[in-house]
Amino acid sequence: MTNRVDIKRTAQMLLGRNDILLLCHKNPDGDTLGSAAALCHGLKSLGKRCVVCCHNTIPEKYDHLRIPVYDGSFPVQYVVSVDVAGENLLGDSLTCYAGKVDLCIDHHASNSRYAQNLCLCSDRPAAAQIIYELLKEMQVEITPFIANCIYTGLITDTGCFRYSSTTPETLETGARLMRLGADHKGLVEKFFMSKSRKSVRLEQYALNNLEYYFDGKFAFLPLTSQALESIQPLPTDIDGLSSMARDFEGVQVSVLAKQTGENKYKISVRTGEEADACRIASAFGGGGHLRAAGCEICGDMEYVRQSILKEVERSLCR
Amino acid sequence: MTNRVDIKRTAQMLLGRNDILLLCHKNPDGDTLGSAAALCHGLKSLGKRCVVCCHNTIPEKYDHLRIPVYDGSFPVQYVVSVDVAGENLLGDSLTCYAGKVDLCIDHHASNSRYAQNLCLCSDRPAAAQIIYELLKEMQVEITPFIANCIYTGLITDTGCFRYSSTTPETLETGARLMRLGADHKGLVEKFFMSKSRKSVRLEQYALNNLEYYFDGKFAFLPLTSQALESIQPLPTDIDGLSSMARDFEGVQVSVLAKQTGENKYKISVRTGEEADACRIASAFGGGGHLRAAGCEICGDMEYVRQSILKEVERSLCR
Repeated sequence: MTNRVDIKRTAQMLLGRNDILLLCHKNPDGDTLGSAAALCHGLKSLGKRCVVCCHNTIPEKYDHLRIPVYDGSFPVQYVVSVDVAGENLLGDSLTCYAGKVDLCIDHHASNSRYAQNLCLCSDRPAAAQIIYELLKEMQVEITPFIANCIYTGLITDTGCFRYSSTTPETLETGARLMRLGADHKGLVEKFFMSKSRKSVRLEQYALNNLEYYFDGKFAFLPLTSQALESIQPLPTDIDGLSSMARDFEGVQVSVLAKQTGENKYKISVRTGEEADACRIASAFGGGGHLRAAGCEICGDMEYVRQSILKEVERSLCR
Repeated sequence: MTNRVDIKRTAQMLLGRNDILLLCHKNPDGDTLGSAAALCHGLKSLGKRCVVCCHNTIPEKYDHLRIPVYDGSFPVQYVVSVDVAGENLLGDSLTCYAGKVDLCIDHHASNSRYAQNLCLCSDRPAAAQIIYELLKEMQVEITPFIANCIYTGLITDTGCFRYSSTTPETLETGARLMRLGADHKGLVEKFFMSKSRKSVRLEQYALNNLEYYFDGKFAFLPLTSQALESIQPLPTDIDGLSSMARDFEGVQVSVLAKQTGENKYKISVRTGEEADACRIASAFGGGGHLRAAGCEICGDMEYVRQSILKEVERSLCR
């Protein structure tokens, strides 16, 4: 049974602990990494030992976060997951922590309540916004470097303040972080203004292969192993692909089906006003947010296409 | 000789006047229109007569600003331009106001000082940010509707807070406007999250037809009459196309050559840090800014391509 804790109590709990391990979700993004980095550097500045663990190698793009990765050099006393909505999202190499997460700090309403203590603020558009408040509560000095880590999470999870999850508090937090030294220009350029060659090739592939259904309300993009082998994208190159078509006029649901095995597909669902992404993903045992969710489907591409089509149709008719 | 005035003085001047005409720049964008709308509605709420004039018909996209267009129903006593850097930007149908602008409110450092009084705040990324401060100074009640007009200008001129011109004050102004009732979600969706079908088709065409030269530093996009006839885009659909490739990894110069006649091409040049767009365009009798410029070249596509290639090569070798 999960014990719900607020930010103040979370701060107290962290202040009373040492030798802390922070866990990120697999296929890490700017929010899980930026949040873990900021919290880690903050706890270290208080004299604690703290390290970070992630199933995947941390992409080069995030080198500026200088994340101290766990090397087993001290015995972990306290395990904290950051921006991880469910244990299954920790990834295979971290299954050893299943049932052993002492504290989870998250902003996903769909959080599966797997941790002993849960600090869940689902009205924050990024976990990084919670981390900012938490560090202030712990009276950690927010250096320009730590501000930059938080800002990374804040802008990557809000499309740089574009998403509808953005609140006045988000903009105010952004303003404070800029004043504290976050490098707005550099981070925006890195995450929003420079497309890698491979992501450009993926975009070209997408525009040439998108399938439209239901009067153009649904855009389906099959991304086969063959295409992936020919383009060889990094995981970060694929980041923007799942939400790309949602921004097209008339599209209410956009689904990326990325082949991950002979008969296995990773499904990313993005929706507009008229459909619930989480509901669609949940039908296949997945989850997420109202506008962005994910799941896995086993079967061949045609089976995946038809299964998704049926669920999207149901969702659009509601 | 222009008299420089600050926001406080500008407020006093406007409070002392009535029967005011606000002028926007030609080919109006969200900032000139949002700023004029907010100021107009604000002045009207103080009991003044105030209307707006623009060379072009105001695009449908801006209907939510409910701009009261001048119909000649009262004699104008005071002429104010908003977000208009030079008299030449008023457009042909407003040349009658040349030398007759009493007050200019602007944020372009390049303002040509044409008005009798100039309230120039070049550190603000949008004229709308000045208008917000001005309305507060005049003690205008900022209704949700007026907040929405200002927010329109603020986000359209900053790429929704992405551009490097964004300051902490910009984010704070954004937060205040959201609290006052600006419709963040609706406006972002309208201006940033809905790509028209034709602009999607243009993007597809672009990705399939981009030519790269000089180790990928130069991206050249030929846009033939044939392609234009098949896609039939509106001018607003083409807006983003010229700068698209500049955001690709490694690209320093991006050129769009749009056919406008049998042997006539409109050239748009966009550059990164390593090249001067204005210099390239000037070689063909055009001009513009350091990062964005344009010109016209007569000849067939192969002549245009070779001429541009030569000039870009020279520019990259500097």
